[in-house]
Amino acid sequence: MRKFFLTLVVALLAWPSLMAEQRSELYGQRASLFDMLGTDSTDIVFLGNSLIHGGNWAELLGNPNVVNRGINGDTADGINDRLESVLRGRPAKIFLICGANDVSHDLEADSIATAVIGLADRITAESPSTKLYVMSLLPINNSFNRYRRLAGKEQVIRDTNTALESLCAARGLTWINLYPSFADADGNLRTDLTNDGLHLLGPGYAIWTEIVKPYVEE
Amino acid sequence: MRKFFLTLVVALLAWPSLMAEQRSELYGQRASLFDMLGTDSTDIVFLGNSLIHGGNWAELLGNPNVVNRGINGDTADGINDRLESVLRGRPAKIFLICGANDVSHDLEADSIATAVIGLADRITAESPSTKLYVMSLLPINNSFNRYRRLAGKEQVIRDTNTALESLCAARGLTWINLYPSFADADGNLRTDLTNDGLHLLGPGYAIWTEIVKPYVEE
Repeated sequence: MRKFFLTLVVALLAWPSLMAEQRSELYGQRASLFDMLGTDSTDIVFLGNSLIHGGNWAELLGNPNVVNRGINGDTADGINDRLESVLRGRPAKIFLICGANDVSHDLEADSIATAVIGLADRITAESPSTKLYVMSLLPINNSFNRYRRLAGKEQVIRDTNTALESLCAARGLTWINLYPSFADADGNLRTDLTNDGLHLLGPGYAIWTEIVKPYVEE
Repeated sequence: MRKFFLTLVVALLAWPSLMAEQRSELYGQRASLFDMLGTDSTDIVFLGNSLIHGGNWAELLGNPNVVNRGINGDTADGINDRLESVLRGRPAKIFLICGANDVSHDLEADSIATAVIGLADRITAESPSTKLYVMSLLPINNSFNRYRRLAGKEQVIRDTNTALESLCAARGLTWINLYPSFADADGNLRTDLTNDGLHLLGPGYAIWTEIVKPYVEE
C-alpha cells in the first residue's frame, strides 16, 4: 500500500513532464526558435496554433513589427509552457487565439475558456505594458470529414466563445469576435474560405486581416 | 484495343491534374495565400519546403523585406506549380532550397538536381532582374528513426548537392553550400540542431542565418 502511494506521488510529480513529452517534434522546433528569437517592446505578437502559423501576418498587415508565434496543434497548455519567451521582451501587443485543439482533445467549453483566460491573466500579470487582444475561435466545417476529433463539436466551439467573451468582459479585456465573419447561415466555416473545414485559404486570411487591422494600428 | 489507347491518352492528359490532386491540403492553403500576397520588387523571397516554412526569416535576418514562401512537404514539382505567384512581382532576390522531399519520394540524385535547376532556369528566364541564390540540401540524421522514406538516403542527398553545384557553376548561379555547417564527422545532421533528424531547432536556424546574411545584405 505504501509502495502504491509512493508510485502515485512519483507519477503525479512526473505528470507535467509526461505531458510535455507528448508534444510534437514541431512544437519542440518552433518553441526552440521562439525562445532564441525572444521579443522586444515594439513587437506585435500573433500567438496561437496552426491558424497563426499558416499566416504571413507581417505581410498581410503591412507591418514589420508583427511576429508569428504560432505552432500547429498547439493548445492552451502548450502556449502556457512557451509564454515566457513571448513575454520576456514585454511586447507592445499580443493577439491571442487558442482553443481549437483543446476542443479536439474532448475538453468541455468551460474548461477551455478557463484555460485560455488563464493565459490572458498571465499575460496581464507578467507584462502589464502589453495590450492584449483575445480572439474568438473560428467556426469549423465537418462536411469535409477531415478531422474526426472535431466531429459534432460545433456547439462546444460556440459555447467556448460565449464563455470566453464573458470572462474577457469581466476583466475589461478586448474581445475580437472573428466567428460571425467566417460562419455560413448554419454556423459552419464558409466553404469558400477553407479546403479542409478547419484551416484557411488566402481569402480567409484576408477577412481576418481586415478585422484585426484597426486593432494592430490603433 | 482502341478503347485501351483512348483510356491511356485520357489518363496521360489527366496526369498533371491527378498529381496536383495528391498535394496536401496545407499546400492548397499556403499556395492560395501566396497567390493572394504576390511579391514586389523589394521582396527577398525564401522559397522551399518545411525548413523554410518553419523559419521566421524576416526576424532572424532583421530585414522586413524578407518573405516566407515555404510549404511543408513541398517538392520541385510543387514549387514549380506556384512559382508564378513568386515571380509575378519580380522580387529582388530568391533564396531557393528544394529536394529533401523529392529524395523521400525515391527520386535519384540526377533527377532531383535536374528538377531543381529547372526551377532556377525558370526564375532566371521569367524574372531576369531577380538575383537567385541556390542553397544546398541539408544533411539528415536517420538515428532518430523518424522518417522511414529517408532511411539510407544520405548518399542521395550528397550526390544531389554535387550535381546541383555543378549545374549552378555551369550557369554562373550563386551556390550556397549549407551542408558542411550542419553535418557531423559522419555526414549526419548534428544532433544538437534537430529533434527529428530532418527539421531544425533554433540553433540550426541561427547557423543558417549567419551563412545567408551576407548574401541577403549584399
